[in-house]
Amino acid sequence: MKLSNRIQSITGDGSDGWDILYRSRDMIDAGIPVLELTIGEHDNRTDPTIIEEMYKSAKAGNTGYAAVPGSQVLREAIAARVQLQTGVPTSANNVIVTTGGQAALFAAHLALLDQGDTGLFMDPYYATYPGGIRSIGSHGVPVPTHSDHNFQPQRADLEPLAKTAKCLLINSPNNPTGVIYSRETLQMICDVCRENDVTLVSDEVYDTQVWSGEHISPRSLPNMSDNCFVIGSMSKSHAMTGWRVGWIIGPEHAIERILDLSTINTYGVPGFIQDAATFALTNGSALETEVANVFRNRLKLAENILEGENHVRLIPAQGAMYLMLDIRATGLSGDDFATELLDQEHIAVMPGESFGASAAGHIRVAMTIPDDQFTKALTRLIAFAKSKVS
Amino acid sequence: MKLSNRIQSITGDGSDGWDILYRSRDMIDAGIPVLELTIGEHDNRTDPTIIEEMYKSAKAGNTGYAAVPGSQVLREAIAARVQLQTGVPTSANNVIVTTGGQAALFAAHLALLDQGDTGLFMDPYYATYPGGIRSIGSHGVPVPTHSDHNFQPQRADLEPLAKTAKCLLINSPNNPTGVIYSRETLQMICDVCRENDVTLVSDEVYDTQVWSGEHISPRSLPNMSDNCFVIGSMSKSHAMTGWRVGWIIGPEHAIERILDLSTINTYGVPGFIQDAATFALTNGSALETEVANVFRNRLKLAENILEGENHVRLIPAQGAMYLMLDIRATGLSGDDFATELLDQEHIAVMPGESFGASAAGHIRVAMTIPDDQFTKALTRLIAFAKSKVS
Repeated sequence: MKLSNRIQSITGDGSDGWDILYRSRDMIDAGIPVLELTIGEHDNRTDPTIIEEMYKSAKAGNTGYAAVPGSQVLREAIAARVQLQTGVPTSANNVIVTTGGQAALFAAHLALLDQGDTGLFMDPYYATYPGGIRSIGSHGVPVPTHSDHNFQPQRADLEPLAKTAKCLLINSPNNPTGVIYSRETLQMICDVCRENDVTLVSDEVYDTQVWSGEHISPRSLPNMSDNCFVIGSMSKSHAMTGWRVGWIIGPEHAIERILDLSTINTYGVPGFIQDAATFALTNGSALETEVANVFRNRLKLAENILEGENHVRLIPAQGAMYLMLDIRATGLSGDDFATELLDQEHIAVMPGESFGASAAGHIRVAMTIPDDQFTKALTRLIAFAKSKVS
Repeated sequence: MKLSNRIQSITGDGSDGWDILYRSRDMIDAGIPVLELTIGEHDNRTDPTIIEEMYKSAKAGNTGYAAVPGSQVLREAIAARVQLQTGVPTSANNVIVTTGGQAALFAAHLALLDQGDTGLFMDPYYATYPGGIRSIGSHGVPVPTHSDHNFQPQRADLEPLAKTAKCLLINSPNNPTGVIYSRETLQMICDVCRENDVTLVSDEVYDTQVWSGEHISPRSLPNMSDNCFVIGSMSKSHAMTGWRVGWIIGPEHAIERILDLSTINTYGVPGFIQDAATFALTNGSALETEVANVFRNRLKLAENILEGENHVRLIPAQGAMYLMLDIRATGLSGDDFATELLDQEHIAVMPGESFGASAAGHIRVAMTIPDDQFTKALTRLIAFAKSKVS
């Protein structure tokens, strides 16, 4: 059996920070207590009211094929939410429900890129971005951003690369950096996109996790609603990571074509899950606030602990559930820092290098363990960093 | 926003039999009672015990990210089932769980085809086959089969096309024809595949719906286990169409690469759904038999009604939940027959043309409404056919 070039190209990035994750899991299996700050997953589970709604729907017989673009009520609920958040007129016809934000990203890129076309993404990046573009035989090209600019993208980095690209993927609030793009940054990005006929793909799955400043959807900037896709998801906002409910917002004609893809790729999302998602989205924002506040509070803990530290610099965390720590003062790479931290302190964090070259010399700390353990882990991490300098 | 050529190519086959489906739904919405024999979906819902298992799993907190290739227990349950059915040694490492059989088909083709490569499929075909191959920029080429051979593929049709192809997709028991490929047919197909370095993709989602003869998985034929993918699903066997649980069986090295694709395409199947599927698969075959027997009994009703009919010839239905009826004696195309049948008799069936040129002059009847209505529909359908001749 000879496999296609494209499927063989999906993996193969240099640094694979996931080794840390697998090693930490092995240690835990061997009975070694590891403080795990790796994966972007809530330590709380999905709210029981959402589970009850799923159960009710399934018991009522909603177990057959669901509408492939998503049920009308869910599409309307998503459209209403997006319109409320952004002010941009949005109808159910601008929405397609997908198998999580991941399937939304995949579909958006297949909708914009042919074989050999170039899709850009900001570096550092979420782990699946480059492989997703390679999987369809297209070129994924990272746009560097810089720790010294707190990872806000700069026109000088983007403009030359935009000239040969078909699309650009951004993510704000950002995983892994915790940065939220300012209005000026977003306007610059939109300008460069329009000047170069580049379609913007805006991954906004952390849009409920905003700690300072303001999250602006670039779809709300002038003349952008017909020139961008917005990726959304229930995973982070409602602690529903495993449920695989996401969506794409875009122009109607594009959503219709993406429906063609969903029909042959996934054939929709289970109806009882869609009913649970509809309940969650139409049930007010109290739950979203509750889910987000866990991380808001942990960020305050972290800021207190890290204040005045010289060996570990916190990139100002404006949103999302991560801390990006600049550990270059220790003289270690992110890979080496994370490896030694795991071996010596039994604390698992992600090396910056696993998110791209721009995050070299950094580590990403997920704020996803209970407060007391989180505090303990950070304190020991700082002591470890100091020990490397002195 | 400029969309890719490949996403714009997914639809665009000539005949679109789904018009019948949409029109019948519109009629129902307008209060007109339509007997719907279109979609391959059980009139029974999923068994309550499976729903309870999902509920239990979700309440126990299994709502976070699930293992992307599928949980170990589910992969083992699928492997054990396949090994029991086929005798071919099969381990969890030969299995990846996918978002329904549809995602399995998509992944298998992306794993085998690069841009511009040719993938074959048997005509008549399930509606999503050609678009699935086009969506990834590859060429989908139908291999004709013939009503006069009861749609058993012939070497003379396959061999010339195999010379330029990378893969061949077959489906037995077959949708839409109800045919099960004989051992001789399968051996011929496997021979042609090996002689031409073509990988076989065997869609076996109807493997529990066998009414006469024997279902043979081509993976069990000599030297085939390393040269084919088998597509499976819970949809038809357990009346779980909406749940989106399917799988691919294949060589370990290929399954590992398909895992890379699942990671960037869907990121796995909800854990509570996997737990429900594990329960269903490990709970004995009584439920599968019960689900299948509904169609077994309806086929007997149909055979009695259609016996001796000259205007409507039943292609011997050996498996799956459909009747393929040859209505060429009426002088009508399948499209015209289905259209007039809907307008005049308020009975919705699928025109053969919507499954490819080889099924022209035929209609597909899904055995998916209660026995009394099913009997009534078939009786009226025959009378309608007679009225067209006399």
